[in-house]
Amino acid sequence: MPESSASEGIVGLYGLLASAELVAFYRLSDDGKLAPTLADKAALAGMAAAEFSHFDRIRGELERLGADPGQAMAPFTGPLDAFHARTVPSDWLEGLVKAYVGDGMAADFYRAVAEVLDPGPRTLVLEVLADTGHAQFAVDHVRAAIAADPKVAGRLALWARRLVGEALSQAQRVIADHPPLADLLVGDGASQLGEMGRMLAQLTDAHAHRMRALGLAD
Amino acid sequence: MPESSASEGIVGLYGLLASAELVAFYRLSDDGKLAPTLADKAALAGMAAAEFSHFDRIRGELERLGADPGQAMAPFTGPLDAFHARTVPSDWLEGLVKAYVGDGMAADFYRAVAEVLDPGPRTLVLEVLADTGHAQFAVDHVRAAIAADPKVAGRLALWARRLVGEALSQAQRVIADHPPLADLLVGDGASQLGEMGRMLAQLTDAHAHRMRALGLAD
Repeated sequence: MPESSASEGIVGLYGLLASAELVAFYRLSDDGKLAPTLADKAALAGMAAAEFSHFDRIRGELERLGADPGQAMAPFTGPLDAFHARTVPSDWLEGLVKAYVGDGMAADFYRAVAEVLDPGPRTLVLEVLADTGHAQFAVDHVRAAIAADPKVAGRLALWARRLVGEALSQAQRVIADHPPLADLLVGDGASQLGEMGRMLAQLTDAHAHRMRALGLAD
Repeated sequence: MPESSASEGIVGLYGLLASAELVAFYRLSDDGKLAPTLADKAALAGMAAAEFSHFDRIRGELERLGADPGQAMAPFTGPLDAFHARTVPSDWLEGLVKAYVGDGMAADFYRAVAEVLDPGPRTLVLEVLADTGHAQFAVDHVRAAIAADPKVAGRLALWARRLVGEALSQAQRVIADHPPLADLLVGDGASQLGEMGRMLAQLTDAHAHRMRALGLAD
């Protein structure tokens, strides 16, 4: 792959990450308004603040590469906003499931991406994906809610399936619209479909694992 | 003032500060959704994240004092939410004016409070009130908007007056409802009204100064 295409791919990847982190900041602070206690509200605000610091890290890296962060991010805000507009949680528990399932899938995706990167970008991508505390917080609260009222499990399992469907459809749109990013992620040419299939299978396995952690049928 | 009343006053003050910072986090992230560009959206998210880190600092201090942060904050969320519910910005510029004028008045108020505190709490209060970058950002954007369309100045000046009226009415409610906090702020007994009057006069002067900085009539 020629140098310019590789660096276009990296700027695309960082733009996607920065955009996702900033959207996650706004989404977590939206979900925090549904929090039943001040402590939960503070916890969500803390997660949002952590997303912002990740965003800030990637934005700095884009600037270091001579890219305009706003330009690098712009192509991805449409699909990300579309995903979130189609999956507005109707209550606190749906918000937690979304934070856990959605961010978990996103993290898996980025980890898969990191494997094909050079050491510098790989370290950065893995660092900004460090768990910001969503996972255990969401698992504890969702399991407690199911223990208190087992019938919420069915509704939340359906909700999680809808999240996955919407996420995959937006991810396909992103990849189809950004050839340099697609090349970076799955290589070009004949092997592309096979690579993509392997990646999706990994994502689906990890998702099933997360659903069991929440106490939900996958 | 007896020891228990003094520490009740400090816990009350920290509860008020923590509550205000957490509410500010959520309000700034709400206002950020109105931002016209990705860069502005990122700037508001950064300010919100700074508010969260101040909140986190005060929460740690409440825990160190053996107080429950949720309990210390609870009495203040009503008036703070009422203030924000009555002053929802209808656009990006109103949001900026609110961030600048509202946070400026809040900071003046806390600085006045800091003067009557012991050195330890005083340093903490002054530190968490360090400007988080709202001021210059808001001034630059509001002045540019007025330069581009001078007739927005009248609307924004009215809006700022409404903000001040609502803020003072909620501040009076907070002080009336919390005698230990009132004692801490204005002393007890005969001098109370005089002290309060002096504090309001200082706040009003500083407000007039901020309105001129924005290019608005006060």
